[in-house]
Parts: sequence; C-alpha cells; structure tokens
Amino acid sequence: MLYLIGIGLSDEKDITVKGLEAIRQCDIVYLESYTSKLQVGVDKLEEFYGKKVVAIDRNFVEDGSGIIEKSKETNVALLVVGDVFGATTHMGLILRLKKESIGYEIIHNASILTVVGETGLELYKFGRVASIPFENSNIESPYDVLKENGDLHTLFLLDLDTKKNKFMRFDEAIEYLLRIEGKRKEGIFDDNKLCVVCCGLGSKKQVIKARGFDDLLKEKIDIFPQCLIVPGKLHFVEEEMLEIFK
Amino acid sequence: MLYLIGIGLSDEKDITVKGLEAIRQCDIVYLESYTSKLQVGVDKLEEFYGKKVVAIDRNFVEDGSGIIEKSKETNVALLVVGDVFGATTHMGLILRLKKESIGYEIIHNASILTVVGETGLELYKFGRVASIPFENSNIESPYDVLKENGDLHTLFLLDLDTKKNKFMRFDEAIEYLLRIEGKRKEGIFDDNKLCVVCCGLGSKKQVIKARGFDDLLKEKIDIFPQCLIVPGKLHFVEEEMLEIFK
Repeated sequence: MLYLIGIGLSDEKDITVKGLEAIRQCDIVYLESYTSKLQVGVDKLEEFYGKKVVAIDRNFVEDGSGIIEKSKETNVALLVVGDVFGATTHMGLILRLKKESIGYEIIHNASILTVVGETGLELYKFGRVASIPFENSNIESPYDVLKENGDLHTLFLLDLDTKKNKFMRFDEAIEYLLRIEGKRKEGIFDDNKLCVVCCGLGSKKQVIKARGFDDLLKEKIDIFPQCLIVPGKLHFVEEEMLEIFK
Repeated sequence: MLYLIGIGLSDEKDITVKGLEAIRQCDIVYLESYTSKLQVGVDKLEEFYGKKVVAIDRNFVEDGSGIIEKSKETNVALLVVGDVFGATTHMGLILRLKKESIGYEIIHNASILTVVGETGLELYKFGRVASIPFENSNIESPYDVLKENGDLHTLFLLDLDTKKNKFMRFDEAIEYLLRIEGKRKEGIFDDNKLCVVCCGLGSKKQVIKARGFDDLLKEKIDIFPQCLIVPGKLHFVEEEMLEIFK
C-alpha cells in the first residue's frame, strides 16, 4: 500500500492528522525532495513523525520501480511538499499502481497554488499558472501565458534545485520577463508594472511585497522558495490588500 | 488573536497538526458553515478537537464585528472548510484585523482548487475557475469563462445551501451549460462533450466519472458537494488517467 501525502509548505506540523496517522503505519517513508523545500530539515520531520525519512530524487520518483516494489510488500509513504498534485510525475506513478492493483491513498494538503491567496488577490481571478525554469534562454512561453491571461492574475512558479540549494530569485524572474518584453515589445510587461513577490509563502518567515518592478529589482530577500505574481485587473478590495504589502 | 484555519475537505482528521494545536489554545471556535460541507457533522469535530464548535452563517462572517470583538479579548479560531481563501469574504475580515492591529495567523489546508488533481488533469493546465449559482436564469458568465479558457481545463464550482442541505448536482450544471449553448450556439459546449464530474472529492466516498455529457445526464449520484470539469486539450497521460474514470 502506498500513501501519497502532502505535507504542506512550512514545517513538520503542517501535516494533517490523517497524514501523520498514515505515516506512523508505514515501514518506509520517502520524501520527494526536489520539487520544493520546507523551512525545516529532514531531521525535524524524522523527530516529529517518529520515523526515518528517506529523501529521494527525481529519477527515483519518475522511474517509480523502487516505490512500486516496496508498496507491494509493505506500507509505504511518499511525502510531497505542498499538495500531492503540484508536479506532473505522480500521475505516471498512480497509473502504475492502478495497473498493478496496488492499493493507494492520497492525503491532501495546502499548495502554493492556493496559499497565494495570502496576497489578497482572489483565487478565482487567476489565469493559467506558469513556471520559469533556470534554463530559459530559448523559452518564451511564460511571457505568452502572461499575455493570454490578460486581465487575470498570473502566478509564476520559480525554478529551484534543492540538491544544489539553488533557488531562482524574484528579481531574476522579473529580469527574464523584461528580456522577453524587450525582444517582443508587445507591451505585456513594461511601464514599471505592479508585481507581487512572495518569499517563503505559508511559513512564519513569509515576506510579501507589492510594488512596481523597478523597485523590486533593487530588493534582495533571502527567504526561499520565491514566486512572482503579475496581477491583472484589480478589484478595490484587492487593491486595498496590496496596499498593506507596498 | 484570530486563527483562520482551513480544515480540509473530508473529516475531522484533515486538520493539520498546527491547526489542531491552535484550536486547543482557543476559547471560541467558529465554523464557517455556508461555503462548503464536510462528510462529518459538527459533533465529530467537537469530539475530536475537544472544543465546542459554533457554526456561523454568512451574515456573521461578512459583518465580522462579532469575530473582531471576541478576537480582541481572547484567542478565537475561525474554521473554514477547505483552505481559508476559497471565498471572498475573508479579505474584508483580514483588512479589519490589520486596521485594528489585532493579531492573526492563517493555517492553510487542501482546497478543492488543487484536489481536482485527483482526476488526473494537470493543475497547470486549468484556466480560470467559474461558479454556477442556483439563480442562473440571467447569468452567462460561466459559459464565457469556458469559452475564454479555450484549450485549458475549466473547473465549475457548484452552488450549495448548507442551511437547507441543498446542493447543486452535476447534471443541473450540465443542463445549465446546454441551455446557454442552445441560446448562443457558439459550439463551446456541444457534441456530447467529455466532462469530468467529481462528487465528495477528497473524501473516502469520492466518485469521479469522465464521460460525454449525454451519459452523465442519466446518472444520479448522491454524494455532495459536486463539481464539474470540462477538460480542454488533453495530454496522453491525462487521457490515460481519465480512462480509469470512464
């Protein structure tokens, strides 16, 4: 049996009671450690869960064979930072569990996709989400998403490499969008456009700033992961909330 | 001090450990009881949390004065089904807390907006979310959202009235879209279009079905709340996942 368990965004106590009870029934506890990062280390998780937690990398999850084999023999937990369905890779895993008739249970948690509500921007006014990868010299799709989203808000998830402890900063994301704007000149990201940056969202350390991008380019904030929101048309309550973060 | 706490979608054990610890420090525990519904009653919550839980209605939350006054005096919890930012009303509350310098903490949880990942549809391929209200005879905006979302997936949240224990069914939502299609004839919702319906999502009772709408109109499922997804362009892994729910 495999339990796929979202563990939230901040620390060891963001797990649900249901998730914690499931972990305590498992002989093997894997942590998917490459899609995001908590504000605490694995040692904190181990101490609180009372189980050894094995950090696994992308290959191990995408290949899936190790997880599948163990799940045939015993109760296995696969912990995912945020909610279980942030990343694409779990669908392949679930399909294989279905095909091999291995039982599984999904235990949900908060995701960056809804925690951005902390900014005061209404969730139902967000358009499609975009990701900005480190390797972006030939990529313009995030700019296209911003363009297509029009009056809707656009959330950009920024790349990270937990193995190297490397996280994209919001100013890099702004510079990326400015570079594409400079090339395409479609007026999608110019005029010191208002941006909302979120650092360590969902944790006690979280920092949210809402300013024109010129101002934000001067700021360095060392709390990660970070994300960037380019708001669309604002309702006056949203404007009032953003005032708080100016 | 006010704790705004998401309690997830299914039962008393979907609360996070952090949320549970916060509740246990509170003298007053309110439950926002009108935006959605768990699969268990308030009695189960009270038993598990070890606190009296007071169900409050829309007026009490939107007016906010009762919550604000109590939060000045003592520790108060406001429990919200799903995550805290599904509904619009909390921003007004948070603005007032800020203005009156009353401390607050937000404790997140799973939301229907990400739990729809259980269908196998990729979250980053969803466009804007739409709601279909009971009173929809003069409303066409959900159809417009479907149209604007184009190749992206569209999630329709269906109205409910917990006081009257009344929930919109997916077949009513399909009939609504067919009515607008019949009027506007833009070819947005026709040709027995594939739909994904979710009933009691995030709970053990959950039912997901993916079929053409003609088939779905013949089905009655008595598990609530329900939502309707009209998928956009499908990736082959998404298609494979939807096969499971045919």
